[in-house]
Amino acid sequence: MNRILIMNGPNLNLLGSRQPEVYGATTLAMIEDACRAHGKAIGLAVSCLQSNHEGAMIDAVHAAKRSQDGLVINAGAYTHTSIALMDAVSSVELPLVEVHLSNIHAREEFRHRSYLAKVALGQICGFGAQGYILALDALKAHLEVT
Amino acid sequence: MNRILIMNGPNLNLLGSRQPEVYGATTLAMIEDACRAHGKAIGLAVSCLQSNHEGAMIDAVHAAKRSQDGLVINAGAYTHTSIALMDAVSSVELPLVEVHLSNIHAREEFRHRSYLAKVALGQICGFGAQGYILALDALKAHLEVT
Amino acid sequence: MNRILIMNGPNLNLLGSRQPEVYGATTLAMIEDACRAHGKAIGLAVSCLQSNHEGAMIDAVHAAKRSQDGLVINAGAYTHTSIALMDAVSSVELPLVEVHLSNIHAREEFRHRSYLAKVALGQICGFGAQGYILALDALKAHLEVT
Amino acid sequence: MNRILIMNGPNLNLLGSRQPEVYGATTLAMIEDACRAHGKAIGLAVSCLQSNHEGAMIDAVHAAKRSQDGLVINAGAYTHTSIALMDAVSSVELPLVEVHLSNIHAREEFRHRSYLAKVALGQICGFGAQGYILALDALKAHLEVT
Amino acid sequence: MNRILIMNGPNLNLLGSRQPEVYGATTLAMIEDACRAHGKAIGLAVSCLQSNHEGAMIDAVHAAKRSQDGLVINAGAYTHTSIALMDAVSSVELPLVEVHLSNIHAREEFRHRSYLAKVALGQICGFGAQGYILALDALKAHLEVT
Amino acid sequence: MNRILIMNGPNLNLLGSRQPEVYGATTLAMIEDACRAHGKAIGLAVSCLQSNHEGAMIDAVHAAKRSQDGLVINAGAYTHTSIALMDAVSSVELPLVEVHLSNIHAREEFRHRSYLAKVALGQICGFGAQGYILALDALKAHLEVT
Amino acid sequence: MNRILIMNGPNLNLLGSRQPEVYGATTLAMIEDACRAHGKAIGLAVSCLQSNHEGAMIDAVHAAKRSQDGLVINAGAYTHTSIALMDAVSSVELPLVEVHLSNIHAREEFRHRSYLAKVALGQICGFGAQGYILALDALKAHLEVT
Amino acid sequence: MNRILIMNGPNLNLLGSRQPEVYGATTLAMIEDACRAHGKAIGLAVSCLQSNHEGAMIDAVHAAKRSQDGLVINAGAYTHTSIALMDAVSSVELPLVEVHLSNIHAREEFRHRSYLAKVALGQICGFGAQGYILALDALKAHLEVT
Amino acid sequence: MNRILIMNGPNLNLLGSRQPEVYGATTLAMIEDACRAHGKAIGLAVSCLQSNHEGAMIDAVHAAKRSQDGLVINAGAYTHTSIALMDAVSSVELPLVEVHLSNIHAREEFRHRSYLAKVALGQICGFGAQGYILALDALKAHLEVT
Amino acid sequence: MNRILIMNGPNLNLLGSRQPEVYGATTLAMIEDACRAHGKAIGLAVSCLQSNHEGAMIDAVHAAKRSQDGLVINAGAYTHTSIALMDAVSSVELPLVEVHLSNIHAREEFRHRSYLAKVALGQICGFGAQGYILALDALKAHLEVT
Amino acid sequence: MNRILIMNGPNLNLLGSRQPEVYGATTLAMIEDACRAHGKAIGLAVSCLQSNHEGAMIDAVHAAKRSQDGLVINAGAYTHTSIALMDAVSSVELPLVEVHLSNIHAREEFRHRSYLAKVALGQICGFGAQGYILALDALKAHLEVT
Amino acid sequence: MNRILIMNGPNLNLLGSRQPEVYGATTLAMIEDACRAHGKAIGLAVSCLQSNHEGAMIDAVHAAKRSQDGLVINAGAYTHTSIALMDAVSSVELPLVEVHLSNIHAREEFRHRSYLAKVALGQICGFGAQGYILALDALKAHLEVT
Repeated sequence: MNRILIMNGPNLNLLGSRQPEVYGATTLAMIEDACRAHGKAIGLAVSCLQSNHEGAMIDAVHAAKRSQDGLVINAGAYTHTSIALMDAVSSVELPLVEVHLSNIHAREEFRHRSYLAKVALGQICGFGAQGYILALDALKAHLEVT
Repeated sequence: MNRILIMNGPNLNLLGSRQPEVYGATTLAMIEDACRAHGKAIGLAVSCLQSNHEGAMIDAVHAAKRSQDGLVINAGAYTHTSIALMDAVSSVELPLVEVHLSNIHAREEFRHRSYLAKVALGQICGFGAQGYILALDALKAHLEVT
Repeated sequence: MNRILIMNGPNLNLLGSRQPEVYGATTLAMIEDACRAHGKAIGLAVSCLQSNHEGAMIDAVHAAKRSQDGLVINAGAYTHTSIALMDAVSSVELPLVEVHLSNIHAREEFRHRSYLAKVALGQICGFGAQGYILALDALKAHLEVT
Repeated sequence: MNRILIMNGPNLNLLGSRQPEVYGATTLAMIEDACRAHGKAIGLAVSCLQSNHEGAMIDAVHAAKRSQDGLVINAGAYTHTSIALMDAVSSVELPLVEVHLSNIHAREEFRHRSYLAKVALGQICGFGAQGYILALDALKAHLEVT
Repeated sequence: MNRILIMNGPNLNLLGSRQPEVYGATTLAMIEDACRAHGKAIGLAVSCLQSNHEGAMIDAVHAAKRSQDGLVINAGAYTHTSIALMDAVSSVELPLVEVHLSNIHAREEFRHRSYLAKVALGQICGFGAQGYILALDALKAHLEVT
Repeated sequence: MNRILIMNGPNLNLLGSRQPEVYGATTLAMIEDACRAHGKAIGLAVSCLQSNHEGAMIDAVHAAKRSQDGLVINAGAYTHTSIALMDAVSSVELPLVEVHLSNIHAREEFRHRSYLAKVALGQICGFGAQGYILALDALKAHLEVT
Repeated sequence: MNRILIMNGPNLNLLGSRQPEVYGATTLAMIEDACRAHGKAIGLAVSCLQSNHEGAMIDAVHAAKRSQDGLVINAGAYTHTSIALMDAVSSVELPLVEVHLSNIHAREEFRHRSYLAKVALGQICGFGAQGYILALDALKAHLEVT
Repeated sequence: MNRILIMNGPNLNLLGSRQPEVYGATTLAMIEDACRAHGKAIGLAVSCLQSNHEGAMIDAVHAAKRSQDGLVINAGAYTHTSIALMDAVSSVELPLVEVHLSNIHAREEFRHRSYLAKVALGQICGFGAQGYILALDALKAHLEVT
Repeated sequence: MNRILIMNGPNLNLLGSRQPEVYGATTLAMIEDACRAHGKAIGLAVSCLQSNHEGAMIDAVHAAKRSQDGLVINAGAYTHTSIALMDAVSSVELPLVEVHLSNIHAREEFRHRSYLAKVALGQICGFGAQGYILALDALKAHLEVT
Repeated sequence: MNRILIMNGPNLNLLGSRQPEVYGATTLAMIEDACRAHGKAIGLAVSCLQSNHEGAMIDAVHAAKRSQDGLVINAGAYTHTSIALMDAVSSVELPLVEVHLSNIHAREEFRHRSYLAKVALGQICGFGAQGYILALDALKAHLEVT
Repeated sequence: MNRILIMNGPNLNLLGSRQPEVYGATTLAMIEDACRAHGKAIGLAVSCLQSNHEGAMIDAVHAAKRSQDGLVINAGAYTHTSIALMDAVSSVELPLVEVHLSNIHAREEFRHRSYLAKVALGQICGFGAQGYILALDALKAHLEVT
Repeated sequence: MNRILIMNGPNLNLLGSRQPEVYGATTLAMIEDACRAHGKAIGLAVSCLQSNHEGAMIDAVHAAKRSQDGLVINAGAYTHTSIALMDAVSSVELPLVEVHLSNIHAREEFRHRSYLAKVALGQICGFGAQGYILALDALKAHLEVT
């Protein structure tokens, strides 16, 4: 059974309280529960982690190298600024699916660039909490063919 | 039962023959069949269309206004250059999911910009043929809550 | 009696249904009727054409070389992207008035650039359907002095 | 009977002497007379003003707030550089039509940007002296529907 | 007792009438009265001046060289375009505090650049009429230590 | 009595030792004491915090949501690079005053851009330690009218 | 005997009538005749096609995959804007020689960029109708060594 | 005897007091006296004018059309921002020599661009007050050959 | 019999040893021999020259003014950086054909710009050694019609 | 005996496992051992530290102010994004040598900019683990002459 | 008696033959004669040198360090591209006057930038051969006061 | 025993006389002696060369192909402008270490870009004459492992 780490970055711990018209009213705990349940249903062991610290996210990516088979990351604002996080994913060579709750390509110009995308299998954005479920499906399919 | 139009743009008729290491060996017909089957399974009536003509794609979006409940578009290279196609989607006010076979954000710089993204619910890219299946799932969820 | 071709580009066939707060509720047929009537009143034989196809618009400009004395074009989104349409007008050497329903200079940055403007007598934008009437007046005056 | 102020900016007092191949041989006084006459014909009380001083133009816009119902401005070179004039128009909340004798979009790159356009109903350029007549027609139509 | 000139630039004479949701409903006369009163309270002789003319503002800066000990300037839109006003302040070598009613860094891109800032002690923006009071406090403190 | 959190970012713990000609000789402890005293004088309960960690600053902004009524932040170099900190402030919806010891707009080009400014009431820069006092005055006034 | 498709894009059907000082007085039919004759002389079966439609050009490139051994394309203005046409050529993997009648690198800035060049063997421009003859020579030589 | 107008722009009235290490200790009156004397010596009737007002400078250029045979302008900071002043010179068709006291090309980036240069015979900069003398020599030579 | 100078710039003396997968294994001497032979065949007297020195290339262009009727130049890397070489060609007014072994438009961005192209009849690139032969053909045709 | 802190930033803890073709197979512990040994040999007391946290790196620079005589920093990806780390080094006024394992100027464009370089003695890049040894030599030489 | 070297760069040896409508019909020898004569008249020993080689110009600047008291350089196209020539002048610390025959600021964009200007006293451009005479006058005045 | 060519570019012959506060007082001869001595000590046969001519440097790189095993180049200002020198190094396929006396990344913006870096093993800058010694050490280590 493949093991997947779902990692959420800065401010995503506030989900449900922050601008619900943009991000929806669902809390992060609810999303993580749904992901674990869906993972179980399709045969993935899902564990979850959230941090506002770029360094902590890098540490977690490193740790995942031995304990995980794939990554789902919503790096929040670090998506657009962190070359270090991109390097971290690049160095562990785990398949990554990039997720964003909102459609970052339809928002401010500075949210269009993603360093993380350069090392990801693909990107799913704009579908709120459902994006994580789709990401798990995509990762499942990828792990089956590789 | 909601009706969904899956529209593929320029060069996607060649799927299976063009750069299979980037886009996979699956043909467009196989993808369309899989979409229709998956649509049936989740309660969506899926119809499909491909064109290399920007104008024909705009015409089809207009026609969809009355006959469809949602759009899944892989606009190929028109994604990056067509303001007219963006305006077309904007004018019919149908929910749109943007799909790309490859991860456009990890390719050449000129493939990073998407006009279509400005009027889409969200974007799914990098997962090959599976991206269309994920798009249908996302659209299904969207249509249920709206 | 001078002959004028009024050509409308992509998505303008939807006038009256698309974002009426921006473009007004008038349909294209109503505008074309008003133009023909106004043309008759000031001594211009007006004919009308709409297409969503860049190539079809170029063909029509070529055809106008022999059958028309002037052009009024609202090229919609092709205004901002089509060098080919600009070249077409340039090659037939007919006087052109560029029209836009909305004030393109007060909208998104990418709508500020007009290739067509480089080969037009002038531009009229922001006055909705009345813009075509003003364009005919302007073309009439131009044809009288040349 | 609506009152309209036609304001001309820097160097437009020289009309008729400066580069007639670009701006025509008509003097500003002739244009103003024609505007007053046309205004009378369509039911607008037209008054006119020219200044080479940015500050004086701003003062005049302020004064127009109480004495006028609409503005027609050819701001000359201040079109491209004056944020202050744009702010002035924005603060008095009078409908504005922007006019240029030549087609500014077909001239040097630095004449393509118009700050004034951001607060105007629309722009008419490239039709020489006739542009003012067209602007009065456009303003008349606007005042009737609002 | 130190003497301070408070100078307001283009359109600020309209305060109270222009976009009150952005700039507040207070008039310029009320602000100037409050400044004179606050100046008296903290030991500063405040005089005030407003002009829409860039040249008049430069003249006033020059005149201040002999008659004033410090400057508080809200240059309005000239903040972003006037190198000449910056040079004027630079040449008289008086301490300057730059004030803006709104937070210019949160508005349009072209309002982010301030030439005046290059020759100012500091900038206070976003606090409406109170900004002038804060500027007087800041200038008072500066004059005491220098 | 309103509660205010004053948060200082990277390197500001070194105040008094680092480039005193730019930032003054006052230590951060002295500034914080002065702020607490001034807060008491004008009816604000001031607490203080400094961190060199972007993630820690984000955590603190989140925590402030329930325990504070306003924020004064000098984010140091994170002002120019942290979209995540901007998002954090945006998500807690507390009034923010942005402070900088030096006049950032008169320094290197890369210090002119402030992400934080997009979500702040206003910005005060260039007045050294006094800037915090001015910020408390500004926040006090804001809290009274809202 | 190798088969070569010579494809001309938008406005090239007007050759001989459009700006002869730039493009020469020769018509497209004359060029195509000369190409067929020259092809016969050097052992190439030349067929010709012209279209103003981007989509039609893409369709023709696809069709060439099975029926042709090489391509000579003068894409006119689509050279500078069509990523889709570049993708089409890339997908059929036929050797391409890019031709332009005028020296595009000595004309307007926006004519310097060629998407087509990224997938071409080489580019020949500035030699009028002779450019096609040179292109056939170049393609002949290429086909002999591969 | 040819008549020359020497016009100085914003802040140049302060010469001798402002940054003497950059501009020298000579006053403007001294420069103007020297110019009149040198003019007399080489057969030019020199008159002088200084203004801090862009509009006043434009008015003076217009007036010079009938009363002067050449212009020497040091437009100060308006050099870099005034398209209107450039247009004024362009419209009167008098030969212009552009002068700057300092070497503007060795100063801040924003002082490198000169709109005035586009309509000047030539530019002399970096030689302090002597620059005006050289300008008169250059203009004398130009008037003799034309 | 027309005389043609074929000039090769920096590093082209190494042909055959440098990156043969990009430039082919042919040596420069072989190319020059082939050119002389082909020249003789079509009635052109070809002489050849190679230099790694920009100045020497300029000297040679000057010398060609009297001794040659046309130029074929592969300026190597100087193509992209030498305004002086462009000026040299411009000053001798000889017809020039620009040649490049590789398709410079399909290589690094900094190899896309050609100063030389601004003064050339046309450009031929991407066809290896054959490019020189095609250039001679093109020059021959040009010299016959002029 | 001078004390030197060697600090490594994000992802460098993974040395030996990440892309060995770029960074070599040596682990960070091996490099640190070699540095300590080489330091001892040339009379430098070397201590080492690695962190993936930008804030922790800033803290360490601050702490070094009292305990160290020089710094060798390989800031990894923070090199390109961290103004805060640059400010930290600037504030402690210790001599810094910047090291990179790979030649960052030959990699992606976004790796060419180094904020740290602005406050470093010099930069050594491209020599793998040996770069640290060279840095110690350089720092040794610097400390001897200052 | 001060010694001055007048150095002319690439293509200036062709003066009189190249584009006389831009540069005048005077030859370089005539200019050099006039300069020597004018130098003698005002007490300067003038020697002259021309080269098309950037390296030779640098060598000459170095040599001037001991044998000359000032430089007049018209670097032609190297003005815009040669950092090395700028460095050469900077290293010999001789006063330099930069001359251009034409007004480079009114020509193509790429001729506006001058590296040489960064190390020159001033620039004189647009006055043809007379520019050298003016430069000698300027240098004479400079040498007298320093 | 490996043979190394140390090549210095424009203006470096002046070392010791030019801006010693930036480059140190050591002459080039002293540096070259030290390099030869250090080379001998570590088993490298060092020869040296300096030229102000870009072409001469290219010639020398070509010549090194047969006679040398490695290159140390301080290309001075040609570092930033010479694509031709980069191509020369690329064509001879010798290992190159790039050296700069000063830290080019901490100087003017136009000195940050290095074409040479794209074909170098690595770069050492900021350590004055010692940089060459470090470069020899680096090259020695490289030659041992390859």
